[in-house]
Amino acid sequence: MRNLKFRKENLLFKLLIMEATNNYIRISSDKMKSEFSRILLDLGFTYPQAEKCAEIFTMNSLEGVYSHGVNRFYRFVKNIKEGFIKPGAIPSLNHRTGSLEQWNGNLGPGPLNATFATDRATELAAENGIGLVALAHTNHWMRGGTYGWQAARKGFVFIAWTNTCPNMPAWGAKDPRLGNNPFVFAVPYNNDAIVLDFAMSQYSYGRMETFDAQGKNLPYPGGFNTQGELTTLPGEILESWRVLPAGYWKGAGLSLLLDIMATILSGGLSTHQIKSCTSEYNVSQVFIAINIKSLQNFPAIENSIHQIIEDLHKSSAENETTRIRYPGENVAQIRTANLRDGIPVNREIWEKILAL
Amino acid sequence: MRNLKFRKENLLFKLLIMEATNNYIRISSDKMKSEFSRILLDLGFTYPQAEKCAEIFTMNSLEGVYSHGVNRFYRFVKNIKEGFIKPGAIPSLNHRTGSLEQWNGNLGPGPLNATFATDRATELAAENGIGLVALAHTNHWMRGGTYGWQAARKGFVFIAWTNTCPNMPAWGAKDPRLGNNPFVFAVPYNNDAIVLDFAMSQYSYGRMETFDAQGKNLPYPGGFNTQGELTTLPGEILESWRVLPAGYWKGAGLSLLLDIMATILSGGLSTHQIKSCTSEYNVSQVFIAINIKSLQNFPAIENSIHQIIEDLHKSSAENETTRIRYPGENVAQIRTANLRDGIPVNREIWEKILAL
Repeated sequence: MRNLKFRKENLLFKLLIMEATNNYIRISSDKMKSEFSRILLDLGFTYPQAEKCAEIFTMNSLEGVYSHGVNRFYRFVKNIKEGFIKPGAIPSLNHRTGSLEQWNGNLGPGPLNATFATDRATELAAENGIGLVALAHTNHWMRGGTYGWQAARKGFVFIAWTNTCPNMPAWGAKDPRLGNNPFVFAVPYNNDAIVLDFAMSQYSYGRMETFDAQGKNLPYPGGFNTQGELTTLPGEILESWRVLPAGYWKGAGLSLLLDIMATILSGGLSTHQIKSCTSEYNVSQVFIAINIKSLQNFPAIENSIHQIIEDLHKSSAENETTRIRYPGENVAQIRTANLRDGIPVNREIWEKILAL
Repeated sequence: MRNLKFRKENLLFKLLIMEATNNYIRISSDKMKSEFSRILLDLGFTYPQAEKCAEIFTMNSLEGVYSHGVNRFYRFVKNIKEGFIKPGAIPSLNHRTGSLEQWNGNLGPGPLNATFATDRATELAAENGIGLVALAHTNHWMRGGTYGWQAARKGFVFIAWTNTCPNMPAWGAKDPRLGNNPFVFAVPYNNDAIVLDFAMSQYSYGRMETFDAQGKNLPYPGGFNTQGELTTLPGEILESWRVLPAGYWKGAGLSLLLDIMATILSGGLSTHQIKSCTSEYNVSQVFIAINIKSLQNFPAIENSIHQIIEDLHKSSAENETTRIRYPGENVAQIRTANLRDGIPVNREIWEKILAL
């Protein structure tokens, strides 16, 4: 019942989360940011809040993460109108103990709260070598990588995660009780950053719906069908709702531990308390920054990373068309192309946004 | 060439890393610990070092992790005799910056260095809320979970990882340039702990060799064959050396980031510098402890975790024989059974140890 209700509600957003591959237009990033900012100001955001939030949604789109950029904006606005996200709310400090702080996100906009928490973690790290900010009662941060780039571009090593609504079964189970709990790792590199941002499910529902709509199979098994067999057919997984944890039992175990840690460190809600996936709100997050500038070996670090990446790039690719990349390596390229050509957006999605 | 050499060297240890499923005898944990301690004393360990190291190898065996307990002990001794592990060496402090310390493991025994680093991270956390110890020039810590239990039983949340020799290809690559870099998460629970300890490869080589020796298929694909196809046949993966990263591109990306972080935070060697997998030594590790006792919500934490576990246990299992467990849930049961019945050990392995 829970699955069916979730699935039905989710279908309403199917159009919105489809990737912009067909019937798309190109929108300049300036135009996109200005429309987002206009809409957010109307919703009661202060000017700096609206600008910052618009910038994050635009940058996510510019860098190719449409699912947590332009394609998610309409739903973000809907969640504000429904009262799940409080436009004016800012984080307040609950407790500090040494280099660890617990903050209450007061249900403010997820990207703004996460930006704040990331900065605060880097400030604590600058003071003490390492800093941890746990954030309770916040909202979806959109693309976790945003905060990885933010911290790493300031010169910090960064680890962060969020819990989510229950959208993935435990290993050996049929009903979704775990979150896909995205996990972010970032290190400064080459005047930019190496950023890994991954969810605990092998594929997102959005990705599977896109494959399904295009009549394509997933490249690798993405879940179990209703018979309990591994399948690459997205439709079967959308039917069973048994999405595959990345690494089978490993991703399921990691999801549980990330949820426990986010919950107890922040004092916020855990996945089982975040009941609805359509109106997912009030999540818990953890942000850890490490100040590498104060390390004994700091002068050698850039070269040390360079050697690791150089070795990675020497890999024998499985075929001629494959290029072996580090996480985030192709982002600059996508950004450059979208800056030049405009951001690809599904025409219907863009019209819905303009009408807001 | 590199793969073939590694494979050939590794075969020498095949007998030793096979799980003790056939031709096994039962050895009491007291007897096992006393034999280990005797051998380590003869190798130049001090009495407390020998006792502690023997205890760790015995406890790993008692709790069912034979691959990093009794089945690994002979190789551990061999690595000491070869000079890769220095019996008398203890960690020395390189640098402290606030709540972060960089230590040199001086190539001492991995389990002793890791025990020290874990304790030190908890001391830093007790002072500052969170503490990080990065350890360069150390050796294989055997079972990462050991340190998770150590920290969590003292009341700390714990995250740690190690890099390894290159034993896994990058995503899209054929040659092993990434480590399987085990990652550990632990939280105190129920007068004990919830501990997740997982490597970045879907299956260990030891596990695949056991399946191969028994003529069994892996339950899920564990790598690519020489034709680049996913396979459940362990022999094909042992041939191609293309073990599957857990979660495909996700585990490969995480492996890279864990290696970069371990290398730069410790100032030690990275996976590409740890050339031999047979004589793997001189690895880099990170230990993070968090003091939950000082949190505002500490009194509510035990109950909060209990509710999460209770919800997990309510999962609908895919079949009647499956029990949905949290990571580490079955450890107490294995320990009790092995304490009662003795630890199962392959007879030949035990005879080789007695002859040391």
